[in-house]
Amino acid sequence: MALAEFELIRQYFNTASLTFPRPGIVLGPGDDCALLAVPAGSHLAMSMDTLNEGVHFPAGADAADLAQRCLRVNLSDLAAMGAEPVGFTLALSLPNVSEDWLQGFNRGLSQCASQYQCSLLGGDTTRGPLTITIQVHGLVPAGQALRRNGARVGDGIYVTGVLGDAALALPYLTHRPGFDLSALNPADRETLQAAFYRPPARTAAGAALRGLASAAIDVSDGVASDLLHILDASANGDAMLGAVLDGGNVPVSQAFARLVASPDRLAMALGGGDDYELCVTVPPAREAQARAALQALGLQFTRIGEVVAGSGIMVRDGSGVVQPLRLNGYRHFGMDDNE
Amino acid sequence: MALAEFELIRQYFNTASLTFPRPGIVLGPGDDCALLAVPAGSHLAMSMDTLNEGVHFPAGADAADLAQRCLRVNLSDLAAMGAEPVGFTLALSLPNVSEDWLQGFNRGLSQCASQYQCSLLGGDTTRGPLTITIQVHGLVPAGQALRRNGARVGDGIYVTGVLGDAALALPYLTHRPGFDLSALNPADRETLQAAFYRPPARTAAGAALRGLASAAIDVSDGVASDLLHILDASANGDAMLGAVLDGGNVPVSQAFARLVASPDRLAMALGGGDDYELCVTVPPAREAQARAALQALGLQFTRIGEVVAGSGIMVRDGSGVVQPLRLNGYRHFGMDDNE
Repeated sequence: MALAEFELIRQYFNTASLTFPRPGIVLGPGDDCALLAVPAGSHLAMSMDTLNEGVHFPAGADAADLAQRCLRVNLSDLAAMGAEPVGFTLALSLPNVSEDWLQGFNRGLSQCASQYQCSLLGGDTTRGPLTITIQVHGLVPAGQALRRNGARVGDGIYVTGVLGDAALALPYLTHRPGFDLSALNPADRETLQAAFYRPPARTAAGAALRGLASAAIDVSDGVASDLLHILDASANGDAMLGAVLDGGNVPVSQAFARLVASPDRLAMALGGGDDYELCVTVPPAREAQARAALQALGLQFTRIGEVVAGSGIMVRDGSGVVQPLRLNGYRHFGMDDNE
Repeated sequence: MALAEFELIRQYFNTASLTFPRPGIVLGPGDDCALLAVPAGSHLAMSMDTLNEGVHFPAGADAADLAQRCLRVNLSDLAAMGAEPVGFTLALSLPNVSEDWLQGFNRGLSQCASQYQCSLLGGDTTRGPLTITIQVHGLVPAGQALRRNGARVGDGIYVTGVLGDAALALPYLTHRPGFDLSALNPADRETLQAAFYRPPARTAAGAALRGLASAAIDVSDGVASDLLHILDASANGDAMLGAVLDGGNVPVSQAFARLVASPDRLAMALGGGDDYELCVTVPPAREAQARAALQALGLQFTRIGEVVAGSGIMVRDGSGVVQPLRLNGYRHFGMDDNE
């Protein structure tokens, strides 16, 4: 890029608004590498996610929203390991340098970084198609990271928050015919926009569940899909694991209940993706303690089913009938192929 | 991406060819985060770089070459801090999934990762324009990282290896009129291709220079530009720093000497960029020891000048005349705007 463009970018990414006092940051941006100290007894957890224009977000999306979304989907991975945020690196490719865009991006990034006290550690800014890659770094006590492979038969299956809003938001945010955001009431509109662009990243919940949850994952592809990752990782040789979910217990927002017709609700809430809530399993002996820990944080924490011997995901309806979960039929709401 | 595509990608990035026994890797790819343990007394150094098709490499470039180049430019940042590689994360965006391409990319990545014993720790694969972002992670003894800010008046300025080959390679690799790669002799062709796609990443040299060099940087934008970063970072208030370089001492390859006409040589070798050699400053009292350390590694290590009070970069010619370095005039060789 031209020198003046570099200076502009430097100005927007080297500010006090992106630096927070966390132990362990020895050296931030500006040299060939950033340097971190990891306290004895801790491990460094890290995760990297990319968002591409037109694939993971609509072209022309607001820069502040994008910054929020990209940092939050990464922080959500820390949450799913029970790690607490320290800092992040940012690789940003821009087709052109617009001061307005950089201002907005910096504003969204700073707001989110401040909320999570997660400092910018370094990165790379290049010319190219609009692509945002963030890597987050967090600390977790050694041996206490929440893994995917600890679920056992009989464990309760829980989710934080509500499900389905982000999947519901997508056709509205991409202006699909029949989905008019401006026709929604303001509260529903805000619910959907927030769900997609400011997903929750439950880092406090993840930390509180250390030593309590037997397995954890963040919900990026939909509970149905992500829970299968837990069940697969936790299966032990021939001992396959499945899940029975209580259809009536799946938590959704008021906006979701208003906007999604009853036959689509369950498939969309469990299959829709992009929730960035935590899905965890908890052994029966620790369920009360886990519920209390999340209640202390003021967070919705819902038991949606239990781990069983078997395979796949089944749903129990109000009359106790158990059937395999069917996800087809709501797909006209979402992008088919948004990875 | 479709499930079958994910499976294909998983197959190519989850193989033994990308895992090496390094202390500190607690958990590699496959969960929400990777986990690293950092030994007491060490800091974790990390750096992130992106390569975009059509910006940092020509469209249609060989996948194995790209993998090599992207990992190496990142490893070069570890080298410049004196850090030793542990592992890397990879964010790869692909417009489509081709088994041939993935095979080639995996081959190049594995070759380089094996050479540096640098394991794949995780990452993200998405659909999008061809973009490769890598973050490398290395260890350096606490307090011994090579920084940019330690140069002092009188320090010798050294570079590893030779300069200018990558800049010379660019017009050949992008098929610019008048630059026909197939017309070169095989040795020159290999020199240029290797310089651009398999830059050296001097991690052993960086580690050997800990405690000896006063400042270090890797040469990505050209010595003239990168040395200025050292001089700026090392300046202390009003005490500006400059450099006087000995034009006759700038090390170039035989291919470079053959292919670049004499009036262009100096500007291209010092201004051309993409060398990924180290440029370091060494206090006079430690120069002999630094030379011996690099000689023990079998590496070319050339004193190209010294740090002076003043500002900017000057060049001393064979008759002792000192003039400001001029970089204009060779620019028809390179891309104008390749950041």
